[in-house]
Amino acid sequence: MEQGENLLQAAIAAGVRIYASCGGAGTCGTCKVVVEKGEVETTRTDKVSDEEFARGVRQACQSRVLSDLTVYIPVESRLEKAVLSREQKQVSEILATGWRFTPPLSKYYVELPPPSMADNASDLSRLLRGLKQSYHLSNLSIDFEVVRKLARALRDGKWKVTVTALVTAVKPRAGDRRRPRMINVEPGDTRDKYYSLAFDIGTTTICGQLLDLNRGRVLAESMAYNGQAVYGEDVITRIAYCQRPGGLKKLQQAAVSTINDVIEEMLTQARVDREHIGHMIVAGNTTMTQILLGLDPKYIRLTPYTPVANFFPPVGASSLGIKVGAHVYLFTFPAVASYVGGDIVSGIVGSGVHQRKTLTFFMDIGTNGEIVVGNSDWMATASCSAGPAFEGGGIKHGIVATEGAIEDCRIDPSSLEPDIGTIGGTRPKGICGSGLISIVAGLLEAGIIGQNGKFNPNLPTKRVREGSDGAEYVLAWASETQTGKDIVITEVDIDNLMRAKAAMYAGCQTLSVGVGIGCCDFEQVIIAGAFGSHIDIEKSITIGLLPDLPLERFVFIGNGSLLGARLTSFSTDLLDDARLVAQMMTNFELSENVDFMNNYVAALFLPHTHAGEFPNVSKRLARRKKALSGKGQ
Amino acid sequence: MEQGENLLQAAIAAGVRIYASCGGAGTCGTCKVVVEKGEVETTRTDKVSDEEFARGVRQACQSRVLSDLTVYIPVESRLEKAVLSREQKQVSEILATGWRFTPPLSKYYVELPPPSMADNASDLSRLLRGLKQSYHLSNLSIDFEVVRKLARALRDGKWKVTVTALVTAVKPRAGDRRRPRMINVEPGDTRDKYYSLAFDIGTTTICGQLLDLNRGRVLAESMAYNGQAVYGEDVITRIAYCQRPGGLKKLQQAAVSTINDVIEEMLTQARVDREHIGHMIVAGNTTMTQILLGLDPKYIRLTPYTPVANFFPPVGASSLGIKVGAHVYLFTFPAVASYVGGDIVSGIVGSGVHQRKTLTFFMDIGTNGEIVVGNSDWMATASCSAGPAFEGGGIKHGIVATEGAIEDCRIDPSSLEPDIGTIGGTRPKGICGSGLISIVAGLLEAGIIGQNGKFNPNLPTKRVREGSDGAEYVLAWASETQTGKDIVITEVDIDNLMRAKAAMYAGCQTLSVGVGIGCCDFEQVIIAGAFGSHIDIEKSITIGLLPDLPLERFVFIGNGSLLGARLTSFSTDLLDDARLVAQMMTNFELSENVDFMNNYVAALFLPHTHAGEFPNVSKRLARRKKALSGKGQ
Repeated sequence: MEQGENLLQAAIAAGVRIYASCGGAGTCGTCKVVVEKGEVETTRTDKVSDEEFARGVRQACQSRVLSDLTVYIPVESRLEKAVLSREQKQVSEILATGWRFTPPLSKYYVELPPPSMADNASDLSRLLRGLKQSYHLSNLSIDFEVVRKLARALRDGKWKVTVTALVTAVKPRAGDRRRPRMINVEPGDTRDKYYSLAFDIGTTTICGQLLDLNRGRVLAESMAYNGQAVYGEDVITRIAYCQRPGGLKKLQQAAVSTINDVIEEMLTQARVDREHIGHMIVAGNTTMTQILLGLDPKYIRLTPYTPVANFFPPVGASSLGIKVGAHVYLFTFPAVASYVGGDIVSGIVGSGVHQRKTLTFFMDIGTNGEIVVGNSDWMATASCSAGPAFEGGGIKHGIVATEGAIEDCRIDPSSLEPDIGTIGGTRPKGICGSGLISIVAGLLEAGIIGQNGKFNPNLPTKRVREGSDGAEYVLAWASETQTGKDIVITEVDIDNLMRAKAAMYAGCQTLSVGVGIGCCDFEQVIIAGAFGSHIDIEKSITIGLLPDLPLERFVFIGNGSLLGARLTSFSTDLLDDARLVAQMMTNFELSENVDFMNNYVAALFLPHTHAGEFPNVSKRLARRKKALSGKGQ
Repeated sequence: MEQGENLLQAAIAAGVRIYASCGGAGTCGTCKVVVEKGEVETTRTDKVSDEEFARGVRQACQSRVLSDLTVYIPVESRLEKAVLSREQKQVSEILATGWRFTPPLSKYYVELPPPSMADNASDLSRLLRGLKQSYHLSNLSIDFEVVRKLARALRDGKWKVTVTALVTAVKPRAGDRRRPRMINVEPGDTRDKYYSLAFDIGTTTICGQLLDLNRGRVLAESMAYNGQAVYGEDVITRIAYCQRPGGLKKLQQAAVSTINDVIEEMLTQARVDREHIGHMIVAGNTTMTQILLGLDPKYIRLTPYTPVANFFPPVGASSLGIKVGAHVYLFTFPAVASYVGGDIVSGIVGSGVHQRKTLTFFMDIGTNGEIVVGNSDWMATASCSAGPAFEGGGIKHGIVATEGAIEDCRIDPSSLEPDIGTIGGTRPKGICGSGLISIVAGLLEAGIIGQNGKFNPNLPTKRVREGSDGAEYVLAWASETQTGKDIVITEVDIDNLMRAKAAMYAGCQTLSVGVGIGCCDFEQVIIAGAFGSHIDIEKSITIGLLPDLPLERFVFIGNGSLLGARLTSFSTDLLDDARLVAQMMTNFELSENVDFMNNYVAALFLPHTHAGEFPNVSKRLARRKKALSGKGQ
């Protein structure tokens, strides 16, 4: 480290991954480190207590290096790559139906007659003639890179070569023909080496799959934390970071570097050569997509929230720094608006919402929180600004869904003792989004908190106590945790979750009313999100996040964005659908909508101020209350 | 210079331009320099006489630097930029007719409503909507570069921008629509700044024109020696040079550097900003085109002479190192075969051969020497390998058509004294191609040489003498020249010219017979070549280079390649024609054709072994002979 350098920046530069939810503004307190040896100069904020400060705890982002240092990074400040190997079961892998297996990428093998004085057509003419004769292909456009390697490939392959052609995402208008693009030529017959990449570029994680286009299956998958996380937890912080000199470039490189790590791992897993990857489809929210493409997301954050484009032309993946052959194009999913991105379009296409008459409510639960209402005839969408609670942000002991995160919690109504489950079954380290929902539902059902989210007074348990941030419930004692500290949930945390779920539910209500239906009219509810595979539906209904409908109407699809990216890699039909879906969606801006604000305020209750919105939950809670009070007295 | 370095390479690296016709193999003797101070180590060849060697004359390519040097470069070894400002009159600027003024590049100005919460479409959607409303443009494809600069351009221009769209050269098939490509967006109204570049990339010179697409006129033109000349004079030497490590790259950069010089000068002349250039069309022979695009021309030189492609996809000009905006595409003219290139196709399109029923003979006289026979219904073409004599190569005092080159010569039949004319009217420095034709015709008509090209014995003039290379005629005495040496034409030179003209004429005969017509059937003869504007038709017929037809059937078009490049910049119709013309031409390979060899041998006479081929010349020569012999005796 250089003297005078910012400690967070120095750590990032050295490849150490520290959380910094607020992007280094000093307001979140997640980048705390312990300076064990050496000197730093720190601007102290209220995020560091006296006790902590005395122990050497500093906010990395607020510290400048004054000498050589030994720094300890507490477990809860570390970004770890642990959750990755957990199996993500997708209940219904293929919700989209009726699509033909027609990958946008095709391989054609041709055997050509060698040139002679009687037939000395150019290499390219010879190849085109062969393709026409063998496959009736005649309207190819040709990438210059193909011309560059053609003479060598033909002679190395002894006039037997394999051509890769790509169909662009834009379906031509009636009467026009599709014009495939010749993007590669390889010596010999390489038809059996025919792979593509599907990616979900999330704000928090980047998930990839390596696909075998011959067999239509997933050969490998991997996932890593988006390297941008060290520059800020949510899109708004990252957009702000892009406004610094060189900020956009840094964020772009961070994403690209993560993508490269994921590719590397998948290639190793599947023993596939990098050069045989022929295509790449990426789905991400509008901000992630723009940053990946090197497009300043500045105006996404400013009223009236305009993205640069809803669809982006394909771009050479290697020109962005992605380590694949120069012939590989990166396709991005089209977006609807600044806060309804390609990830949502991908989820809709992947889950086939646009194919059915079924009135569907689609929700992607996350920091942003996008919802879609509609069916094959129409679709309306909105973004709800739920805040980071579902991903562990803004929660005292919140962490992303990684090993050691409490993801499940039952509370005994008699003893008021918790029974917690963690990801990986290890000792607890913090609380992730699904854990938070589970805990709050449990506290509510056990009568520890009221429907207003406040702790009930005078409960017969020492787990409820007054902490530094007000009332709190101890989920795990210091001796039971990885961190060596009590893990608690505070009234402030509960309030944050209530705001998040209120935003989602209010969005759902506002959008439904806007299109003239009620929440109970939904015939199907599709839940997406990296988070989606762990969420407990019943408890989510209990706290008022999901509408009070019969459980059988709910479907989990896990990472919908990745699902759609995979399926469109297999089917040009679905790739065409993606563009149509993006165009057919009507976006409702909720941020300045009065109804949304009213609905939001009404939803700041467990499950809701209007009991009629959650009839079953209200009945159940009333029964419990009666039982508890009967027993207690 | 570094010790041990090759002297020619060191000079090139230092920016000194020395001829090296053979590309540094030591066989041509054109790179002679005089070492005045310092030491070199030289491999001596028979190109340096004892007298020269004693004076310090060395072949630069055969010398290694041993110490610091002072080197004098004789005037005849220098590549100079002198001939350039000479006016090139083109008898008929526009031979192609009936084309509409429809440049492939278009500019569209739109005024857009700024975004609001009620209308927060993406920047790109807003732009496309505007283009649709104002111009009914709806099927644009969009370059990624446009997306990259869009947000800034819209806001800098206060929602008033100018879009540049390009139509690709490929005319879609019936039923398909053309799909223009949006390549640029600029703030404000820039419709009045609307320029393109037309280039002829010749083996010897590179000629450019800066075009104003609003007014359909040439704003500036310039020309420079192709920087590749220092690596070899003809395409074969350069292809050989490409096989050295880094050779292709060096040649490519040399051409690009020359192009950049020409662009620079034209921009200065016309006071045009580089950023307002929107397009670039280049015509060149197949080897020049491939080298410019960075494509190894290796197989052009090897049987069966296959180019990489007959047409090349457009490529980003700046990606090749050409100093224009990143949005500028470089279009190259399609070629017919390895030795019938885009320059010929350009000449045919520019001169409108493909538009008329007139049976036309088109010849591009140069080192390669391409010929085309045909009309709007059919076309046949061949390349004749004339050799470098027409460009001054292989001629003892031959130089390219630069200042001081003898370009014209009359010989008094009585005194046998010459009356020479030089380019620029300066003291003579050497002989260029048109001079050579003029001199040989003069020597023949004055009876100094016979129809076999040999000097007649015992002539009453001291100008005919025995030189180091055999018999020679002194055109200028040492005291009258720039070089301080006698300028002579030798029997070997005459022989070389005869071989060159025999190849052209034999090509013409062979091709004509091949398609079932005679040389006298041509209704029009179009002569192209940088050389074409100086050639004396009558004398060319006299020596048997051009067919013996009435003079009014001949038309000069000067640089046909540049003419076609310019016209296609003005008209998409003609751009479409270029592709059709390249496809309709049937190429005859003459290099292994027995008839061609027979015709060639028969043409090694002045004007021809068969007097019947040149009835008018034969009659005139017979009359002269009689007159001379009458006078002489």
